[in-house]
Amino acid sequence: MPSESPLAEDPAAAREPLDEGLLSPVSVGHDGDVTDAAVLRALVSAEVALARAYARTGHAPRETVAQIDRALDWRGTEEGCVGHGLDVAGIAGAAVAGGNPVIPLVGALKAAVPEGSRLWVHRGATSQDILDTALMRVAASASARVASALRETERSLAGFAGAHRDTLTVARTLTQHAVPTTVGLRAAGWLGGVRRARRRLDAARAALPAQLAGAGGTLASFVEITGSPAAALELTAAFAAEAGLAVPDAPWHTHRWPVTELGDALVQAVDAVGKIAADVATLSRTEVGELAEGAGGGSSAMPQKQNPAASVLIRSAAIRAPQLGATLHVASALAVDERPDGAWHAEWPALRELLRTARGATAHAAALVAGLRVDDASVARNLATTRGLVLAERLSLVLGPLIGEQRVAEIVAAVARGDDLGDRVRRLPEAAALDIDGLLDAAGYTGAAASLTDHLLEEQS
Amino acid sequence: MPSESPLAEDPAAAREPLDEGLLSPVSVGHDGDVTDAAVLRALVSAEVALARAYARTGHAPRETVAQIDRALDWRGTEEGCVGHGLDVAGIAGAAVAGGNPVIPLVGALKAAVPEGSRLWVHRGATSQDILDTALMRVAASASARVASALRETERSLAGFAGAHRDTLTVARTLTQHAVPTTVGLRAAGWLGGVRRARRRLDAARAALPAQLAGAGGTLASFVEITGSPAAALELTAAFAAEAGLAVPDAPWHTHRWPVTELGDALVQAVDAVGKIAADVATLSRTEVGELAEGAGGGSSAMPQKQNPAASVLIRSAAIRAPQLGATLHVASALAVDERPDGAWHAEWPALRELLRTARGATAHAAALVAGLRVDDASVARNLATTRGLVLAERLSLVLGPLIGEQRVAEIVAAVARGDDLGDRVRRLPEAAALDIDGLLDAAGYTGAAASLTDHLLEEQS
Amino acid sequence: MPSESPLAEDPAAAREPLDEGLLSPVSVGHDGDVTDAAVLRALVSAEVALARAYARTGHAPRETVAQIDRALDWRGTEEGCVGHGLDVAGIAGAAVAGGNPVIPLVGALKAAVPEGSRLWVHRGATSQDILDTALMRVAASASARVASALRETERSLAGFAGAHRDTLTVARTLTQHAVPTTVGLRAAGWLGGVRRARRRLDAARAALPAQLAGAGGTLASFVEITGSPAAALELTAAFAAEAGLAVPDAPWHTHRWPVTELGDALVQAVDAVGKIAADVATLSRTEVGELAEGAGGGSSAMPQKQNPAASVLIRSAAIRAPQLGATLHVASALAVDERPDGAWHAEWPALRELLRTARGATAHAAALVAGLRVDDASVARNLATTRGLVLAERLSLVLGPLIGEQRVAEIVAAVARGDDLGDRVRRLPEAAALDIDGLLDAAGYTGAAASLTDHLLEEQS
Amino acid sequence: MPSESPLAEDPAAAREPLDEGLLSPVSVGHDGDVTDAAVLRALVSAEVALARAYARTGHAPRETVAQIDRALDWRGTEEGCVGHGLDVAGIAGAAVAGGNPVIPLVGALKAAVPEGSRLWVHRGATSQDILDTALMRVAASASARVASALRETERSLAGFAGAHRDTLTVARTLTQHAVPTTVGLRAAGWLGGVRRARRRLDAARAALPAQLAGAGGTLASFVEITGSPAAALELTAAFAAEAGLAVPDAPWHTHRWPVTELGDALVQAVDAVGKIAADVATLSRTEVGELAEGAGGGSSAMPQKQNPAASVLIRSAAIRAPQLGATLHVASALAVDERPDGAWHAEWPALRELLRTARGATAHAAALVAGLRVDDASVARNLATTRGLVLAERLSLVLGPLIGEQRVAEIVAAVARGDDLGDRVRRLPEAAALDIDGLLDAAGYTGAAASLTDHLLEEQS
Repeated sequence: MPSESPLAEDPAAAREPLDEGLLSPVSVGHDGDVTDAAVLRALVSAEVALARAYARTGHAPRETVAQIDRALDWRGTEEGCVGHGLDVAGIAGAAVAGGNPVIPLVGALKAAVPEGSRLWVHRGATSQDILDTALMRVAASASARVASALRETERSLAGFAGAHRDTLTVARTLTQHAVPTTVGLRAAGWLGGVRRARRRLDAARAALPAQLAGAGGTLASFVEITGSPAAALELTAAFAAEAGLAVPDAPWHTHRWPVTELGDALVQAVDAVGKIAADVATLSRTEVGELAEGAGGGSSAMPQKQNPAASVLIRSAAIRAPQLGATLHVASALAVDERPDGAWHAEWPALRELLRTARGATAHAAALVAGLRVDDASVARNLATTRGLVLAERLSLVLGPLIGEQRVAEIVAAVARGDDLGDRVRRLPEAAALDIDGLLDAAGYTGAAASLTDHLLEEQS
Repeated sequence: MPSESPLAEDPAAAREPLDEGLLSPVSVGHDGDVTDAAVLRALVSAEVALARAYARTGHAPRETVAQIDRALDWRGTEEGCVGHGLDVAGIAGAAVAGGNPVIPLVGALKAAVPEGSRLWVHRGATSQDILDTALMRVAASASARVASALRETERSLAGFAGAHRDTLTVARTLTQHAVPTTVGLRAAGWLGGVRRARRRLDAARAALPAQLAGAGGTLASFVEITGSPAAALELTAAFAAEAGLAVPDAPWHTHRWPVTELGDALVQAVDAVGKIAADVATLSRTEVGELAEGAGGGSSAMPQKQNPAASVLIRSAAIRAPQLGATLHVASALAVDERPDGAWHAEWPALRELLRTARGATAHAAALVAGLRVDDASVARNLATTRGLVLAERLSLVLGPLIGEQRVAEIVAAVARGDDLGDRVRRLPEAAALDIDGLLDAAGYTGAAASLTDHLLEEQS
Repeated sequence: MPSESPLAEDPAAAREPLDEGLLSPVSVGHDGDVTDAAVLRALVSAEVALARAYARTGHAPRETVAQIDRALDWRGTEEGCVGHGLDVAGIAGAAVAGGNPVIPLVGALKAAVPEGSRLWVHRGATSQDILDTALMRVAASASARVASALRETERSLAGFAGAHRDTLTVARTLTQHAVPTTVGLRAAGWLGGVRRARRRLDAARAALPAQLAGAGGTLASFVEITGSPAAALELTAAFAAEAGLAVPDAPWHTHRWPVTELGDALVQAVDAVGKIAADVATLSRTEVGELAEGAGGGSSAMPQKQNPAASVLIRSAAIRAPQLGATLHVASALAVDERPDGAWHAEWPALRELLRTARGATAHAAALVAGLRVDDASVARNLATTRGLVLAERLSLVLGPLIGEQRVAEIVAAVARGDDLGDRVRRLPEAAALDIDGLLDAAGYTGAAASLTDHLLEEQS
Repeated sequence: MPSESPLAEDPAAAREPLDEGLLSPVSVGHDGDVTDAAVLRALVSAEVALARAYARTGHAPRETVAQIDRALDWRGTEEGCVGHGLDVAGIAGAAVAGGNPVIPLVGALKAAVPEGSRLWVHRGATSQDILDTALMRVAASASARVASALRETERSLAGFAGAHRDTLTVARTLTQHAVPTTVGLRAAGWLGGVRRARRRLDAARAALPAQLAGAGGTLASFVEITGSPAAALELTAAFAAEAGLAVPDAPWHTHRWPVTELGDALVQAVDAVGKIAADVATLSRTEVGELAEGAGGGSSAMPQKQNPAASVLIRSAAIRAPQLGATLHVASALAVDERPDGAWHAEWPALRELLRTARGATAHAAALVAGLRVDDASVARNLATTRGLVLAERLSLVLGPLIGEQRVAEIVAAVARGDDLGDRVRRLPEAAALDIDGLLDAAGYTGAAASLTDHLLEEQS
């Protein structure tokens, strides 16, 4: 094994990107918004948005700022600075000394724009203004895709629940068969959870603010440059518009609810699809066999296996996301001073990884529910496994008042030992007046399943 | 030390209540809503609310249900069953076998009410209906107090921020003096964070739903009893009204957003007061001395110390709350089947402890900000510590264009070595036209601090 | 619902103990070591141990200290001060002001002992010396019971694994049937995990140190009193001996590895029994039915259900314990100064709850494995479900070289569609020389299961 | 802002590596062991180690296996397969379908080696054998560097503590000046914490095992291939030797203590350096000024600032590491079946990020302590701030018995209001016989600081 190495240099690290695909299969193909390249685009775009805001509010000459636009390839608020031409690895490496990529970025940007426009690069800004705004751009972009995947999941689930609205199945509690339910209601419940999470995410996304606080949260530099507090606040609004983000109610440099509220919503989204994955994994078990993913995963050794691969990946995300969200909260609570001594920096990788995890988990969920298949035979077989005892609660309700709970329990126990439930009930003189066939028909004991399903589906449309 | 003991009996446990006051000073005196006695009142109240809902919707005879009311001392939706007379310890002990206090509770309740009314006790319900509803009652009660403490904190902060609106102080970033700000803006920022958290908590509180799902989430038992899905849903609404909770959109037995959304809001509330406590603890340091708690904590060995005891307790809560919130999310994501095999049970103590922690932290925060004192002399002394270098950014903005950044940096470095800033600036020929006194007056470089403070205070009223 | 209440008084809290039994069924009956009463005994015992240490090292008069012993009912290192007579609730209430129960405790103790011996109560000590030492006493006592429960679990598992050493069953990977294994090896694996955790816990328990650091970690007060550093260190050793704890290598007031190492070991213990509970819950599913807890939990609505109640409770603990451990680590990393401003206080309730959770989870695990039953018929039925495909890997290994992987895969696919595996293999001309019956006997493909089981069991004895 | 995008394709992700340098400055330059390239080398090396183990135990022809060595550029146990020539991105992309990079890897490997040797590639192995073994190789390599950085930190701290062994300073508790201590003892305490963590990490590193369990944990395939359980276990030992890892006591496919024990040790290492960073950040505050990092971070806006950049980065790691460790424990506790349905996959990115975080945090700590500077003037100034009240405890101990605690407290209060401590004490008739100068000399009240420092340093050598 690699023996102990001197601390000093680790030249390999400089050469090799991290990627993380091999150890995070849930996120492969869903990293586009959170790569270093994307973060750098967001950082550059935030800087250009500031220069543009100065022009928009009449402080900087329009043509001078247009030079910055051209030099850094600004393509509008949404796309930002696509072809900015800066070197990611160089800036990342230079970020270590000051603990912050904006410090080297500013130097690189000034070198990249014409001399006459340099004054308007990063003018009056502090690193946090740019980094927070860039983080929010990255968050907005990645979480828009999460929301999109959730909506796609909702659409598929609505179709699935509708198609299986009346398919009887067994409800399980504490791992045991309990009472009848429907495949449709189970899926409608999934839909309800996903929709709730998506709505909360939509609200959190809409609130993502730009940051323009200056070195100490007072906007003093911007007041100095623009001439008045009112002008500085106008600049903030213009900056937010250029950056495609909400206008901040006030500086949030050490009041991190924009980060934690988004984080909470992302975790809730992963929870919601995690619940689906937990059910699919369970109902795909060899012994259960009620559900199958459209495209099961293979095995390197056992060709017969059809692993619920998407469920497994989603579950791996669901186990991880809550701790990432907790890290954002710990950092928020420790946000001392006017810029904290570690808590702010702790947010960045945690939020990035949470976005990436939520992206992957929700994309896989969308695909999973789109391809989900029901094995009707297994569903029916399982419902019959306890030979009627899924109706024990109903017997208790209907027969209890007639023959007493004690005798109902005896019947249940006898059936559990092998007796036939229908025989036992028909033999009861007290049951003579009852519709025994109806009583023992599981389809008659699904309660409000259909109504609840319809209600949950209606809300979707 | 206690040598190894046989596993078997631990009779002491039966005799001694946990209390937890000695190891959770932050919560002492703020536990009233989450004690076992309070939980039991909520459980009994949920059961009675169900019986009352049957009466209200015409299924149970009013007088029969009134017998239940009387037997269990129902005092209305808000107070619930105050004098129910049941034995907490007995029910807690009997809860272990089934993993659930509702199972023994039902037996005790049936024994406590007149025989003729027993049929309507727990009729059609599953344990989870009662436990979830009771949890929501406990959560509603405890989180109402959290919201109340937050509002009180807001009021005090508004007064404090207004009183110190124009008190100059130094803003610190990464532990270092940076630029001027005001005591008022710092406090207004605290206010903004607390208010945001309180509003989110208000929204979460308003959404807390009753649970009426039946054994498998279909309401089948209630349909059986009431005769139709519509009647069962009407019963649900009546139950929610009696329990003082929101009518659920659908059963949420395995879709736990009511729990995690409340949990997230509670954690955000603790974050917001944690930020205040972090600042107060820092600014109370002996070397800083800008703030002092109204009532500092003493020391058993050092009588001269005035410890920021409330800040310490609030911070202890802020370090713990995020992990409690994360536990709620892990449980939510693992909520398999129609009642999960451990995830549901994991929620109970985590939510209880989070409520209790938030209660204590916010109550201490309310007291802390009500008594917070500013030491103006220390504030002024600290602002002057760097002998004008808190204006370095302003010099850079104003002088940079005149003399170049390089020469500004040289001046800053010279001042850092001991030179007088005013002398150095006045010596500059390029600065002849400037108002040097104005330039070097920290009061002139607080940017939009006053405007931002006013804006944050206006929103409060 | 309880309307918003004024913050002010919460008189109910003063009257009602927390208990926590109703919402933490996993811990009911396993709280004896961590109640407030037990903590107070530990606190008083730590104070008395200090006085005794002064006497033991010749600094305090023996008879004077004996008065303290008598007044506070010292019963030796192990039992401590059983009948100390102090009021828990009063001290807890008074602890809030200073954030620390030791401050009011010292006053109460001085009042409780004869005037002539008061000098030796808390002499030279700081609150943290007493609280940390008491926490370690509580931790030692509770974790001894955890270790005991783990050892009992090991013994039962050894018997269980031996008894089912050769019982064939199916191994499941990613929820799907994979290859054969044995019930014995599965249980031996559980044993290996539990044993590893117990050994690590034993190591952590043996290292639990007393704390004697003085107000700033220098032992200055003790040097002042005893006359020299050497005498102060001798006092430390005597104190540790009286308190029944290890002699600290150095003060650990802000180096919290004794807390986190114990915490990690407790979490590992809960992980190990959590794995067992996860398997038991899964293998108890109605469709699987291979295992049953000796005493299943009942249901309030469905008398036929036999819930795996112990597994459910253990899993609820396993979901919570990691976050409690994380809280201890966050607190450890934030242990600033010579006594931190919140991190230390955050430890107390987290460690207490972790001890309590581990106590309950391991006690339930011991009972669970002691009563665990195997349903041989279900085990055999499940193994046969895939009609031989659990041997697909073996076919690939044996037939692959003869007929190629492609044709093996075709056979597997055909069997998955309904063909008989034996027929298909026997039809192969290339297989003529093979012992087909042997090849298709699952008992012949358990690999080293028996050897591994024996190895794991031998290590136990 | 980026408007909502269709879920479908995210082609950017395929083109851009993640890097993560911009948002994780603490880890830049310390990623070498955990990049995808490094993970792929470890995966390929594990596969080759298996083939070599077959040759070593006489099952595979030596020359055939040598062909594999050559084709994949095996350079020995330590370096592994450096120039294997496989495509990382391709394998990562293909890993998604099965949730596992080993499945596509095996295909790529078979294609890369001569046809005659293909049989011995991945022979008998399951994906988990290779992935777990590769993870342990990556963990061994990265954690060796963590241990190396810790040892370097220890060496620097030993020198620092020795150099400042007798430098008086003030001990702070709950943010307030308490009593005197020494810079040396503070640093020796840091050393003790780091050393403890490093020893625990060394133990965890030494235990990192190879994995060879086969599809169901029985080694059945290896028994089939090698002919006997004993031969399969011999193969396991040979595999571990070739992979440079410990021989596993038993398969640990679902008993994840090797992962959690390493994780716990890594978190403890980050805690230990986090404590140092917390102290350095605090003692670097502008008002305190006792310590300075050798190379402070600059500011983009305020050239005068010398930020404690390394401390900030280390603290950012310390806030995050505990939650990563908790994720490993949650995954461990949920490791159901013979390969779990998500918990295993959740480990990979969490362990990778924890390794990376610990690498960065400890490397920065090594650099931090190597360059740490003490400002003796500030240290002395701060000690004098309370004008002698850091000796209040001593006064209480010495004067208390002479004049009573009440009068000592009055003196302390008077000094706190401005009186001179020496004057007040000298005025006491009861103090006539005392050496007042000695009593009020802080150097005389450092207790066992020097002894403890020496003891902690001796242990190091």
